[in-house]
Order: sequence, then C-alpha cells, then structure tokens
Amino acid sequence: MTAVPFDDWVRQVQSGMEDVLATLLPPAAAAPARLHEAMRYAVLDGGKRVRPLLVHAAGELHDADRNTLARAAAAVEMIHAYSLVHDDMPCMDDDALRRGKPTVHVKYDEATALLVGDALQAQAFLALAEAGGDPSRTLRMLRLLAQASGSAGMCGGQAIDLASVGTTLSLSELEQMHRLKTGALLRASVMLGALCGQVPDAAESAALDAYAAAVGLAFQVVDDVLDATADSQTLGKTAGKDAVDNKPTYVSILGLEESRALAQKLREDAHRALLPFGDKARRLRELADLIVQRKA
Amino acid sequence: MTAVPFDDWVRQVQSGMEDVLATLLPPAAAAPARLHEAMRYAVLDGGKRVRPLLVHAAGELHDADRNTLARAAAAVEMIHAYSLVHDDMPCMDDDALRRGKPTVHVKYDEATALLVGDALQAQAFLALAEAGGDPSRTLRMLRLLAQASGSAGMCGGQAIDLASVGTTLSLSELEQMHRLKTGALLRASVMLGALCGQVPDAAESAALDAYAAAVGLAFQVVDDVLDATADSQTLGKTAGKDAVDNKPTYVSILGLEESRALAQKLREDAHRALLPFGDKARRLRELADLIVQRKA
Repeated sequence: MTAVPFDDWVRQVQSGMEDVLATLLPPAAAAPARLHEAMRYAVLDGGKRVRPLLVHAAGELHDADRNTLARAAAAVEMIHAYSLVHDDMPCMDDDALRRGKPTVHVKYDEATALLVGDALQAQAFLALAEAGGDPSRTLRMLRLLAQASGSAGMCGGQAIDLASVGTTLSLSELEQMHRLKTGALLRASVMLGALCGQVPDAAESAALDAYAAAVGLAFQVVDDVLDATADSQTLGKTAGKDAVDNKPTYVSILGLEESRALAQKLREDAHRALLPFGDKARRLRELADLIVQRKA
Repeated sequence: MTAVPFDDWVRQVQSGMEDVLATLLPPAAAAPARLHEAMRYAVLDGGKRVRPLLVHAAGELHDADRNTLARAAAAVEMIHAYSLVHDDMPCMDDDALRRGKPTVHVKYDEATALLVGDALQAQAFLALAEAGGDPSRTLRMLRLLAQASGSAGMCGGQAIDLASVGTTLSLSELEQMHRLKTGALLRASVMLGALCGQVPDAAESAALDAYAAAVGLAFQVVDDVLDATADSQTLGKTAGKDAVDNKPTYVSILGLEESRALAQKLREDAHRALLPFGDKARRLRELADLIVQRKA
C-alpha cells in the first residue's frame, strides 16, 4: 500500500493525467491544426479530473496495470470534456466561461466546438481501444464506456435535463436525471478502474456500484450547493446559473441546509459501501470526502 | 457464389440493414422518449445505405460472418447518420432537408439534434463492441472506425471543409479534404467488411485501399455533379447549395464535363484494383458502377 498523503496522491494523478492526455491527443501542429488546437484547449490544463481520480482510486483495489489505468482515465476524461464543450454551446446551456477560460465556441466558433466534441468522443474510444492487454477486458471496458456515454447514460440525462427546464421535478425525478447525466460516467469511472485490475465478482460489483451511486449523487448535490453559494471566480464557471435558467436543483427543491445534510449522508453511504474492501479502498474513501467537501 | 441480380442484392442488404438498425437503436418508447424517437428518425427509413453496402460487398471476399457484418455495417451507418445530423445544424451547413425529410434540428430542435448526434456516435461504438466473435478482431475494427470518424478522418475533413468556404482550393487540396471528410468512412467500410471475413494480407489490404480510395473520390465527384445538375426533389436534400455557399467543388474547379470524365476514370481505377480478387469482388465492382452512375 502506498503511504503518500492524499493531497500528494491527487496531485500525482492529476499531473500524470495531464501528460497522458497531452500524448493521446493529436499534436496541435498536425493538420487540421485549428481543430487539434481546439481539442487540446478543451481538454488540457483545467478541471479537477474527478473521473480520472476515481479510475485510479478504484485501480488500487487490485493493483491495476498502470498503462491500462491511464488510458481508461484519459478516455473517460475525453468523454467528459466533449460533453462540456457541447453543453456550453448556445443551443444548450449557452455558457461563456468554463474552467476559468472562455468556452470553446467563444474562443473559436460554434462549428469548431461542435467538431471538437465529436472528434473528442471518437478519440476517447480510440484511446481505450488501444489500451493493450487482454482484448476481452478492453472490449468490456469499451461497452461500459459507450453505455455510460450514450442515450442510456450521459446523453440521456442531458435530454431529460433539457426537457426539465422551467418545469417542476419531484426529488426522485431530479435524482433520475442526475443518475444519468453525471452519475453514469462517474459510476463507469469506478468500474473501469476496478476492471483495470481484475474483473470484480458480483458482491464487489454491487459494493462498487453502491459507492459510485452515492458519490455520483453527492457530486451533484454539492454542485447545486456551490452554484447557489460560490462565485464565478471560485468555480471557474458562471455561478448562479441554475436559478437564472429556472433549472430544478437540490437547492431549489430541498433548500440549502437540507441539501448539505444530504451530501453528508451520501458520503456516509459511500464509506459504508466500501467496508468490504478494507484498506485497499482508502483512496476511494478519501475521494468521497473530497467530493463532498470541495469548495469549487 | 450468389447468383442474385445486383439490384435484388442491394434491396436485400438495404432492407436487412433497416431491420438491424431498428433493433440496435433504443426503442422509441424507452425514456428519454424524445431523444430516442429523434435518434430513430435520424437513422431509419432513409438513405442509400452506401456504407453498409460496401461493408457487405467486402464481406463477400471471404464469406464473412453475417452477424458481425450486420453490426459493422450498422455501426458505420450510425456514424454517418450522426455526422449528417450535426452537419445540417445552423452552425454548420444550416440545411432544412435531408433524405427528403426535415432535418433533425428542424423537426425537433437544435439541442436535441446535438444530443442525437452525440448519442448515435456512442451507440455506433456500442453496436460494434457487442459484435461477438474474436475480441482481437472486434478491437481492431473499433480502432479502425474510431480513426476514420475522428480528427484524422471524418471530423478532420469537416474542419478543413469549414475553413475552405469562400477560399480557392487547388485540386489536390480539394482531394485531401474529401479523402478525410467522406473518404475515410467509405474506406473504413470496405476494410471493416473484409475484416469480418478474415484479416487481409498486405497485398489484399493495398488492393482494397486502392479500390476504396477510388470509389470514395468518385462518390464525391458525383455528389458535386449532382448538386450542380439535379433538383432537390430528386436528391432528397437541397440542391445547388455548393454554389450558393461558395464552396469549392470538383465542378467549380474542373467544370461539369471534366468532372464526369474523372468519375469514369475513378470507376476504372476501382475495377482495376479489384482484379486480384476475381469473381469474389463482383459486388464491390457493381457498387463502384452504382456509385458513379447514380442519379441521386
């Protein structure tokens, strides 16, 4: 077991991820240069890398192969980055600020943003398909990522999100939306990381799934709390947008204090789910804390 | 060898493809229903299915497994369909008519069109990843499809296309753009179909690549000729758009007659490339003829 303090481990994963992403993305000088430059702009130098952190933390359960972990993490992060680029476009959330920088369609143009997202999605599947190692396992990971990204996962959640603007959602409808929109990819991150080590048995899968579900939901609850309480400078994206857009959130349904209490409860759920793994789940436990306690 | 006349074979593949696509796409009734309905609208009941035809024709070289062929063909067609949906959006070509029907962003809305394209791309990789059979071969096919779809293929070609509007391209620059924009996926179709049978050796690969390159270019030359000469009703999409948009085309660079002559020359190139395969390449030969002689 590693004895590196959590903060150092986080920085190591983040900085390693930056190198891997920089290598796996096409060089900015290669034609078509503007597209490649914009793809790199969308992915590199920004973000908390929560999904890669989850992949790596789950990889510690069974001493996963480092190269496979890095590629799985990069693939998930590229999917996440493409979704942000498309999500920020005028026909979706119409946002000008992301990770403290102008969004891709503002910095470049809308058509480029559309292509950047499309090309990043293909690049994500390519990065994973080239992971090497056991082909059956790689295929299983590809299926997992495709399911989590598509209409039964992230894209489906965004469609529900779109349809929900200006409407009143029940708590369970809100939960279902987030379970797909952000939860599916967060859960896939945990499962991909575990698969990089060895295929989890049914009990392990269920435990990891319970952990990932709790963390995924906690992530969103905290997001809603931060949107309502933090400023744009701190968040690196436009704050207070949910209320302006009349979007249903945990804060709008539960209020601020109850939302905070829910996040804490979900953190405890996440910890409890990890009990069977003992000390090997240390990074996953620490990540649950980070996700709930983060300030941005 | 099959003795079915070419026209019947084409109809068989097209109708079989429709069934396979209908099965592989999420049901329209499943939530989120609007997204799923729009995905099916974008893919089903339309199109010449040129790429699935190429997959199936190349599959005849080595008696490919039918299920794998169907999934590979469906995956390529979903990639193609997603690219049309995004290409038609206001920030790209801004087109209202496709396959004789209103485009997805017109029939639904822009945000839905964006998500339809994104979800279809994920669905394409999922369809192929679930193909079964030898995992190494499936992985190889996935890599091929991802490369042909991303920034080194289709998306890259579209980026060059965007940058070329209103500029003057040389014939070789125009060729390079189309080699990526439509050529990459057409070439992938041929190679995927061949791989469904057995991995082609170096000489076979080179021959298939020469065929696919010629057919891919011929496809585009004929597209440009039809855009300049046919009407929207016949094409099922807005005719005469290239000239209105001031887009460089074979017709604008070479003129109509020389473009037609080029298409014929490319057809002969395609036939010549297939000589080593003898009678097994019959469908590929017939498809080259179809692509050059088509009226829409």
